[in-house]
Amino acid sequence: MTNAIVHTRVRKVAVAGFTDTNDILATEDPLEIRLVHGPSHNRRQQNISVTMRTPGNDMELAAGFLFTEGIISHSDDIQEVILSSTEDGDVATVHLKPSANARLGQVQRNFAATAACGVCGKTNLSSIRTGVSVSEHTFALSTPSLLRLPDLLRHQQSVFDSTGGLHAAALFNNSGQLLLLREDIGRHNAVDKVIGAAMQQSSIFLQQYGLLLSGRAGFELIQKAAMARIPVIAAIGAPSSLAVKMAEEWNITLVGFLKEDRFNIYSGAATIDVPQNTTQHG
Amino acid sequence: MTNAIVHTRVRKVAVAGFTDTNDILATEDPLEIRLVHGPSHNRRQQNISVTMRTPGNDMELAAGFLFTEGIISHSDDIQEVILSSTEDGDVATVHLKPSANARLGQVQRNFAATAACGVCGKTNLSSIRTGVSVSEHTFALSTPSLLRLPDLLRHQQSVFDSTGGLHAAALFNNSGQLLLLREDIGRHNAVDKVIGAAMQQSSIFLQQYGLLLSGRAGFELIQKAAMARIPVIAAIGAPSSLAVKMAEEWNITLVGFLKEDRFNIYSGAATIDVPQNTTQHG
Repeated sequence: MTNAIVHTRVRKVAVAGFTDTNDILATEDPLEIRLVHGPSHNRRQQNISVTMRTPGNDMELAAGFLFTEGIISHSDDIQEVILSSTEDGDVATVHLKPSANARLGQVQRNFAATAACGVCGKTNLSSIRTGVSVSEHTFALSTPSLLRLPDLLRHQQSVFDSTGGLHAAALFNNSGQLLLLREDIGRHNAVDKVIGAAMQQSSIFLQQYGLLLSGRAGFELIQKAAMARIPVIAAIGAPSSLAVKMAEEWNITLVGFLKEDRFNIYSGAATIDVPQNTTQHG
Repeated sequence: MTNAIVHTRVRKVAVAGFTDTNDILATEDPLEIRLVHGPSHNRRQQNISVTMRTPGNDMELAAGFLFTEGIISHSDDIQEVILSSTEDGDVATVHLKPSANARLGQVQRNFAATAACGVCGKTNLSSIRTGVSVSEHTFALSTPSLLRLPDLLRHQQSVFDSTGGLHAAALFNNSGQLLLLREDIGRHNAVDKVIGAAMQQSSIFLQQYGLLLSGRAGFELIQKAAMARIPVIAAIGAPSSLAVKMAEEWNITLVGFLKEDRFNIYSGAATIDVPQNTTQHG
């Protein structure tokens, strides 16, 4: 397996002059995800996806991807995940139990979906929505707990991210504690890794957790969180229009622009206990 | 066609209290790219890709995508681009001239490539590399010209980006002037748009321009720039390991962490005229 960072020489230029020195980069490297499935007398292998990812937690990434893309429904569908290196790059082969039912009718959509895209037209939007219901949750969060998250994230991320090039996704509880953090050069991979890690540790349904995102919240991240029944998503960056729309439809609380002294609530305001000096604008 | 921004209600929370007010979001919405091609007596239509994009400059996006993904080789392969809205979303149908040769053997790769991925194993890396040679250029740039770019970008971007949610890609010349800027919620779309816009205005080979990126430089952006023969890429954010590797192989000058007083050169240092107080480290 490849390393998560790569050493490089760099010329650092400032107004006063330049320095040639060592530096490190976040690794970007392909991981192929393969699936072995079917009853014992008829096992088949299928290529599912190739993702450009930062090496590390590849088993979690493969498991999380299969789950958040709807190909498997339970973490115990997985018998084992085998990592190997080929001439063309790293491969994670997920062996399902002979009894498991892989929803491979989904694969065509998923390819297109994770393609340039994230989702492909309203037909598919509807089909995704069908599988998802986050409505049954009792997750509630205070403003101080939320405001604490950016600092916790930065602190935990700095351990890994000396490169400035990684996205993070983390699970937090309703006291505002970070429980599990994963990083990747692709933000969708970071979310798959953290959900895959939760799958391995316990349940894949994460009604009692929030998802913290180091960057912007696009639709595909809301979709992945919804598959895991995550009721609250807090992003350091901006949400997109479709992220807000889907969060509203799926009853997910969506926070954006989360800083140490403020944040915006785009949907599901009821979940968050806010200070009571209110102003009504616009 | 949909708008590039969407109005929303938002609850802005600070330590002292909250405000319910109006806000705007960057639109994230699917665009399907279709291709009509073949000789006059045998025209065929094919779905090429669906991309989640910010509406606007959709014709440029479709043209740029077909070119940077290697499906067409010349801007004059295109007869016309027709935009339409269907129940499932917006569609850009690119009609090639009957004489044009669409390289649709590429489409399978492209689907996988722009999939979760950007590129799929070394086989495909090699196949991409074959089509690309940026070696013949005489583009040179001074340090002051480079240091001016972040401010120019911020100034031009602020006109459009009141949402905090858009990536920008811009072409600049060797005096450090920004010539053409496009924005999108997807950074690969911003690059396709700006290259597509250049295709419509003149050449698709941009040896005399640099490409400025508002965020991080991943491999797929280097690939797209290389297809257009762009010799210098300057990113406000960090480059990935594969971005640096490909920039080196393709003889592209790659600058990262570009700020108003400093930047890092990761490859092709010879192209940039730097201040001469040197230090050797590491």
